[in-house]
Amino acid sequence: LRNGFPEVIFCQGKTVEQVVKIFHSLAEKNRNILATRAGQEIFEAVQAQYPEAKYNVPGRVVSLTREHCKNSSRRVLVLTAGTADIPVAEEAAVCSEVMGHEVARIYDVGVAGIHRLFAYYDKFETAAVLIVVAGMEGALASVVGGLVDVPVVAVPTSVGYGANFNGLSALLSMLNSCAKGVGVVNIDNGFGAAALADVIIRSGLKHV
Amino acid sequence: LRNGFPEVIFCQGKTVEQVVKIFHSLAEKNRNILATRAGQEIFEAVQAQYPEAKYNVPGRVVSLTREHCKNSSRRVLVLTAGTADIPVAEEAAVCSEVMGHEVARIYDVGVAGIHRLFAYYDKFETAAVLIVVAGMEGALASVVGGLVDVPVVAVPTSVGYGANFNGLSALLSMLNSCAKGVGVVNIDNGFGAAALADVIIRSGLKHV
Amino acid sequence: LRNGFPEVIFCQGKTVEQVVKIFHSLAEKNRNILATRAGQEIFEAVQAQYPEAKYNVPGRVVSLTREHCKNSSRRVLVLTAGTADIPVAEEAAVCSEVMGHEVARIYDVGVAGIHRLFAYYDKFETAAVLIVVAGMEGALASVVGGLVDVPVVAVPTSVGYGANFNGLSALLSMLNSCAKGVGVVNIDNGFGAAALADVIIRSGLKHV
Amino acid sequence: LRNGFPEVIFCQGKTVEQVVKIFHSLAEKNRNILATRAGQEIFEAVQAQYPEAKYNVPGRVVSLTREHCKNSSRRVLVLTAGTADIPVAEEAAVCSEVMGHEVARIYDVGVAGIHRLFAYYDKFETAAVLIVVAGMEGALASVVGGLVDVPVVAVPTSVGYGANFNGLSALLSMLNSCAKGVGVVNIDNGFGAAALADVIIRSGLKHV
Amino acid sequence: LRNGFPEVIFCQGKTVEQVVKIFHSLAEKNRNILATRAGQEIFEAVQAQYPEAKYNVPGRVVSLTREHCKNSSRRVLVLTAGTADIPVAEEAAVCSEVMGHEVARIYDVGVAGIHRLFAYYDKFETAAVLIVVAGMEGALASVVGGLVDVPVVAVPTSVGYGANFNGLSALLSMLNSCAKGVGVVNIDNGFGAAALADVIIRSGLKHV
Amino acid sequence: LRNGFPEVIFCQGKTVEQVVKIFHSLAEKNRNILATRAGQEIFEAVQAQYPEAKYNVPGRVVSLTREHCKNSSRRVLVLTAGTADIPVAEEAAVCSEVMGHEVARIYDVGVAGIHRLFAYYDKFETAAVLIVVAGMEGALASVVGGLVDVPVVAVPTSVGYGANFNGLSALLSMLNSCAKGVGVVNIDNGFGAAALADVIIRSGLKHV
Amino acid sequence: LRNGFPEVIFCQGKTVEQVVKIFHSLAEKNRNILATRAGQEIFEAVQAQYPEAKYNVPGRVVSLTREHCKNSSRRVLVLTAGTADIPVAEEAAVCSEVMGHEVARIYDVGVAGIHRLFAYYDKFETAAVLIVVAGMEGALASVVGGLVDVPVVAVPTSVGYGANFNGLSALLSMLNSCAKGVGVVNIDNGFGAAALADVIIRSGLKHV
Amino acid sequence: LRNGFPEVIFCQGKTVEQVVKIFHSLAEKNRNILATRAGQEIFEAVQAQYPEAKYNVPGRVVSLTREHCKNSSRRVLVLTAGTADIPVAEEAAVCSEVMGHEVARIYDVGVAGIHRLFAYYDKFETAAVLIVVAGMEGALASVVGGLVDVPVVAVPTSVGYGANFNGLSALLSMLNSCAKGVGVVNIDNGFGAAALADVIIRSGLKHV
Ligand SMILES: Nc1ncnc2c1ncn2[C@@H]1O[C@H](COP(=O)(O)O)[C@@H](O)[C@H]1O
Ligand SMILES: Nc1ncnc2c1ncn2[C@@H]1O[C@H](COP(=O)(O)O)[C@@H](O)[C@H]1O
Ligand SMILES: Nc1ncnc2c1ncn2[C@@H]1O[C@H](COP(=O)(O)O)[C@@H](O)[C@H]1O
Ligand SMILES: Nc1ncnc2c1ncn2[C@@H]1O[C@H](COP(=O)(O)O)[C@@H](O)[C@H]1O
Ligand SMILES: [Mg+2]
Ligand SMILES: [Mg+2]
Ligand SMILES: [Mg+2]
Ligand SMILES: [Mg+2]
Ligand SMILES: [Mg+2]
Ligand SMILES: [Mg+2]
Ligand SMILES: [Mg+2]
Ligand SMILES: [Mg+2]
Repeated sequence: LRNGFPEVIFCQGKTVEQVVKIFHSLAEKNRNILATRAGQEIFEAVQAQYPEAKYNVPGRVVSLTREHCKNSSRRVLVLTAGTADIPVAEEAAVCSEVMGHEVARIYDVGVAGIHRLFAYYDKFETAAVLIVVAGMEGALASVVGGLVDVPVVAVPTSVGYGANFNGLSALLSMLNSCAKGVGVVNIDNGFGAAALADVIIRSGLKHV
Repeated sequence: LRNGFPEVIFCQGKTVEQVVKIFHSLAEKNRNILATRAGQEIFEAVQAQYPEAKYNVPGRVVSLTREHCKNSSRRVLVLTAGTADIPVAEEAAVCSEVMGHEVARIYDVGVAGIHRLFAYYDKFETAAVLIVVAGMEGALASVVGGLVDVPVVAVPTSVGYGANFNGLSALLSMLNSCAKGVGVVNIDNGFGAAALADVIIRSGLKHV
Repeated sequence: LRNGFPEVIFCQGKTVEQVVKIFHSLAEKNRNILATRAGQEIFEAVQAQYPEAKYNVPGRVVSLTREHCKNSSRRVLVLTAGTADIPVAEEAAVCSEVMGHEVARIYDVGVAGIHRLFAYYDKFETAAVLIVVAGMEGALASVVGGLVDVPVVAVPTSVGYGANFNGLSALLSMLNSCAKGVGVVNIDNGFGAAALADVIIRSGLKHV
Repeated sequence: LRNGFPEVIFCQGKTVEQVVKIFHSLAEKNRNILATRAGQEIFEAVQAQYPEAKYNVPGRVVSLTREHCKNSSRRVLVLTAGTADIPVAEEAAVCSEVMGHEVARIYDVGVAGIHRLFAYYDKFETAAVLIVVAGMEGALASVVGGLVDVPVVAVPTSVGYGANFNGLSALLSMLNSCAKGVGVVNIDNGFGAAALADVIIRSGLKHV
Repeated sequence: LRNGFPEVIFCQGKTVEQVVKIFHSLAEKNRNILATRAGQEIFEAVQAQYPEAKYNVPGRVVSLTREHCKNSSRRVLVLTAGTADIPVAEEAAVCSEVMGHEVARIYDVGVAGIHRLFAYYDKFETAAVLIVVAGMEGALASVVGGLVDVPVVAVPTSVGYGANFNGLSALLSMLNSCAKGVGVVNIDNGFGAAALADVIIRSGLKHV
Repeated sequence: LRNGFPEVIFCQGKTVEQVVKIFHSLAEKNRNILATRAGQEIFEAVQAQYPEAKYNVPGRVVSLTREHCKNSSRRVLVLTAGTADIPVAEEAAVCSEVMGHEVARIYDVGVAGIHRLFAYYDKFETAAVLIVVAGMEGALASVVGGLVDVPVVAVPTSVGYGANFNGLSALLSMLNSCAKGVGVVNIDNGFGAAALADVIIRSGLKHV
Repeated sequence: LRNGFPEVIFCQGKTVEQVVKIFHSLAEKNRNILATRAGQEIFEAVQAQYPEAKYNVPGRVVSLTREHCKNSSRRVLVLTAGTADIPVAEEAAVCSEVMGHEVARIYDVGVAGIHRLFAYYDKFETAAVLIVVAGMEGALASVVGGLVDVPVVAVPTSVGYGANFNGLSALLSMLNSCAKGVGVVNIDNGFGAAALADVIIRSGLKHV
Repeated sequence: LRNGFPEVIFCQGKTVEQVVKIFHSLAEKNRNILATRAGQEIFEAVQAQYPEAKYNVPGRVVSLTREHCKNSSRRVLVLTAGTADIPVAEEAAVCSEVMGHEVARIYDVGVAGIHRLFAYYDKFETAAVLIVVAGMEGALASVVGGLVDVPVVAVPTSVGYGANFNGLSALLSMLNSCAKGVGVVNIDNGFGAAALADVIIRSGLKHV
């Protein structure tokens, strides 16, 4: 791939030792590394050997950025409906940053208090891609998708309870969005949203 | 019940003959009758004997109103997200009217074009109850519920396809609404929404 | 909103520190605060700084009521089918109280022993709103809804096992209720039921 | 099996010719035959050759009873919640009759108007088995199961729409019944209910 | 009810203190008590005050039998498909015993080794009711139901993994059984099976 | 592939014209052709041009066999639980025949009358592969799988109604089979079963 | 919006008269119109008044293009797994064309014959966006997503039967894709895929 | 069965004591034993008495092989899509080995990087059976099934999150595979895959 583009380790279901071992082998051939779904103990084990590694606590992402992967100034804007959606949003945000994109965050602007969302309206169209992170009824993706003429990457989250069925309600909402220009990724998949935003931006650059 | 309050026949799964027979027997003891989910042929059979019967075509409701059931001037406001939701909305609206309520309709104000919705904003708070009818992602209930301090009766519809799963997406959306003051009825249940709105209004009157 | 109307924190998925911090910031601008889904340790941390805070143990609600939000004498009646539904009912009851409503409780009157329910029959119509909390087959909402001419807020609970599928059985039962005047909220959502009851009552007052 | 016990043909998915052929071959070795889920055209084809065959129109059952299968005077009582449940109830009732049981029917006594149900209360305990047929929320099985000390065979029906999901709501309700002594059969399975009632009654006789 | 018929406490979701308190209040008015889904610590707390209380370890049932509830010699036969189904079977068996029935057990006779099942064939017809407990594919209920002319109470269990979906596979199997005379109770509901078997037997006695 | 091995057209969702056109183009390069899920009208259109084409009516398979694809004498044995499963079984059987295998059929040997199944016991082990076709509770695959030491290809069918959920019950049963040596294909996928049986047999031949 | 950008009518569930009326009103203010999910009879009614209207038969799209909406030469590449996916793909393709994009089509390159897919490999990277349309197991999106560094819009289709559950299998596959850069739209939503591809391309242009 | 063929204990849901006891009783009559889903503590308890017992750590299989069960040289090839699928694959692999088959392993060759898979292409056809283990979208089974003319045993795993629904996505993918010659076993059922592969191979040998 491109210079500086990160290799990624998905830590869920791996032991600290396994992650550290994979981290080493990747770090030999790559400048930048991401480890997602990483607990504090994974970060500490990585940091012991790579002191420049950073840890995003809510997003649970370990990142090693030894070379900045410059990607033009196109901006990824990450929105959440609630505060409980922030971990997923931070996974998306920090991954986007390591992939070389400028990231802006607007959190807790869910549709039940829609005036808060509109206060940020003029920021929306300046972004190259919007990542909309929402649980419960997931309505934010539709509202935002209807407001902007920019690609919306919709990330349903498992935030909620009861008839939320672990994210099913937000997922179905987003898939059925009547707004144009919305693409959906898996429930809680912040990394996947960042990867889709990245390829959208780079596709735009490549084809000029 | 109260004077003039309608008796209701649910026609789905009944033959024309069965409906007409039930209609007769109800019409002997009641002034007003509603027949929901009624096809054109049911209306014609009823009208042959009760020329004053009316038929709401999109709502598929036959109504016989021989005595107006006066219910104060509290208003029921019925909103839809799309035009395909209108049949369900009309079922709710015409049932509300026969139950003695003034009804206002605002159709096709879904969240993908939210400016249309806001144009009607000042009408919302003047209503005693809002009935919000929406299919697909069903986000309208949350947005409206967040805007008003009035009870919202949310009616998911089976409008949509694919991951809509016959109304499941809108249903789950509405049940997971992060807005306060939203009560949900069954998918496509316009009559049930009218009945809930009716009892809400009458409870307010009764307890003054 | 109105004087004394509480601000609410939903504690599920938040740390003690996060809740305390939000509690502080809300307590600066509001007289009354509710924290739902709050463990004992959250209560203790809040109480350390707000000694007048109270804790409803089964309902897991922390409340701070510095100004009583007087709302007329209209009563909310909370019923449960079983004892295991009491936590959800208490969430509804204590939230209703802090919202300024008089609350009556009738617990453990499920339909399998229907004579117990009927013993309380004359209390039902005196309420402005009934909140019916039931798990397993959730039949109580239909039976009560058929008995009264008062709005019923139906709260399915996740109480049960097996083919209950975490509350799905009660939820579907309540959505399919053949009784008139039933509005459904999310599984286990005691707070949401209180919020819907509150807006129903206040809509009645406002529009007189 | 016993003298006169019927052989049964399940007609759904079979052609008229196939059913007639099976009917013939069974009629050679058995005195009594049932054909369930049989359309009018099947009845006519059977009747052409077996003029004594009878047809239950709502239950869609063809029966040939050439020898009465006497089974003591124990009674099967069939109840329905609504009128739309009658076809399933009639399938159960006519099958029970051919199996040699006295059958009583009480239809349209759903829980939304529970006083109608109670009017029949003294008939319940005189039955050997109750077959309770209900769609929508299926609550009748729990209410009846709580009232009687007699086995209840619960038959969920697919009557309803929306969140009924073709009978799932009634099925889950009945499986989660908090009443004691309820056994559930498949959705719309009137014949299966009759067969279970039959073996319950005969087990009682056999073991005296 | 009848002399000696047990009152039952469902312990799941209750604290030791709550169970003990309910136990006391029931023990004042009843001779026999059952507490199902009871952990060892509940048994110990009960036994401290009722030394004659017994505990069925796999079935997790505490029982207090101060008066034998004699019920004729009709036998309940409990079968399981696997060893992992034994806890549910024991719940059914011990409840049946306290209800006054003679109980026989045949465990681990699943259909994958059907010769083991047939070895017990002559015991089946001597029972008044069979309780068939099976997880995974739940096929035992159909096979046994086809072999006997005795009521079969089918208890699906949550034993299994993957596409078992917590007992859904066995539940659906049993509901779709093509054998005659099978009634289904909730997943893992050993008590419910015993209660249905009990009422079936007593109905037979009562109506002689 | 091998000489004479058929090319296959899946007709569902294709017009007669489309199928005929594909048939032509395949018939130019292949000796043998199968068209599955083919209605009578497709057969007639094919036969008009290929008079040697044959049609299996219940299986709805058009076959053109211009060269016999000899495959040793290893036998495929196809079993069904009921008569309604025969169409799926015939699809499997005729496809197996055109693929060059000797096929034996044993139909209507479901587990509710297990003695019928055992009457055929000695035929089972002589087969190279068993294809077991069953709807409703799908128990036949487990019973047969437990009896034989031969690969069992299990085909759930959509035969049934209600809690069968279009074949889900049989599918889950077969996936959860506690018998060893069972591989499952899609609901109603007779062709897929034949294709799996074919590759199992040929793998055995190839590797000798 | 931009000059020439089409307005769209979703015809499903609308009568010919309704569509024609909406078509008229849109045609007054817009140069280009799309009508999706349109039957032949809708096309004929539109064409009677707008002779320049075109009809894409498999895609069921009526289009009126009175002004070409020039959008640079960036190409949308539409792939299908099977021939039965072509209607959805054509909906996507014709909508993309009217939106002003050059479209290439590669159909019937599903993963079961992966060499066919690879034959087109060098065309993939030249596209600005890939629309991958697949039913059944939906694996094509993952395979293509892994091969290219271009945004992939994944469209699950309802093509298949049985455990396909009307497109659920392909939908879940695509949402769980382990390939980077895949965004999913609703089942069978060819128009939505085109709209997402369009905004991705225009976002790239706009932000240069 | 054959000499040396292992008896199997499924440890999930059994205590260490129970497993050890079953192990003893089996070890008296059998030369070889497998214990699947066994934790480290089970291994230690077994090893204390059978020092020659071995433990496969990722696969969680205890094996005692006192006599090699020679099965010709036909090879089972086990593939996984990701590293997280290895535990299931190892369960399959070690069970196959104890059943007397030569086993080759190719791990982490998922379809998102399909060149890695193709690097192993020439190994595929040399196997007698392929066991393909994959979670998430489960596409590997289709791709491999399309490449080879050898039976593919597809094992969906619960690896993934969100819309994976505990393995449902991979399960449905594999059941809907458009490749020929794929048989599916339960989610995470490595043992079941080995058992199916075993009977496929032995069927081939037996029938020569
Ligand atoms: N949070 C995430 N969710 C889903 N996939 C991820 C996530 N983080 C990383 N990945 C993917 O997982 C791959 C690495 O998986 P593994 O080889 O199991 O560590 C990366 O190449 C990413 O495509
Ligand atoms: N559209 C509707 N959806 C659900 N319930 C309805 C509807 N219309 C009428 N009902 C209810 O159906 C009852 C009449 O049912 P029935 O006795 O079957 O005609 C009425 O009392 C209403 O409560
Ligand atoms: N038990 C509850 N269930 C659902 N929503 C709740 C509950 N308690 C509070 N809420 C809502 O959650 C909001 C606060 O959420 P948060 O900002 O995440 O603390 C409140 O304004 C309420 O609308
Ligand atoms: N991982 C597994 N998944 C499913 N079934 C298994 C597994 N391991 C062993 N078995 C089966 O479980 C049976 C033993 O079960 P049990 O008698 O409960 O120990 C064996 O004969 C195998 O057929
Ligand atoms: Mg947009
Ligand atoms: Mg509101
Ligand atoms: Mg009422
Ligand atoms: Mg009872
Ligand atoms: Mg039987
Ligand atoms: Mg076998
Ligand atoms: Mg890619
Ligand atoms: Mg193959």
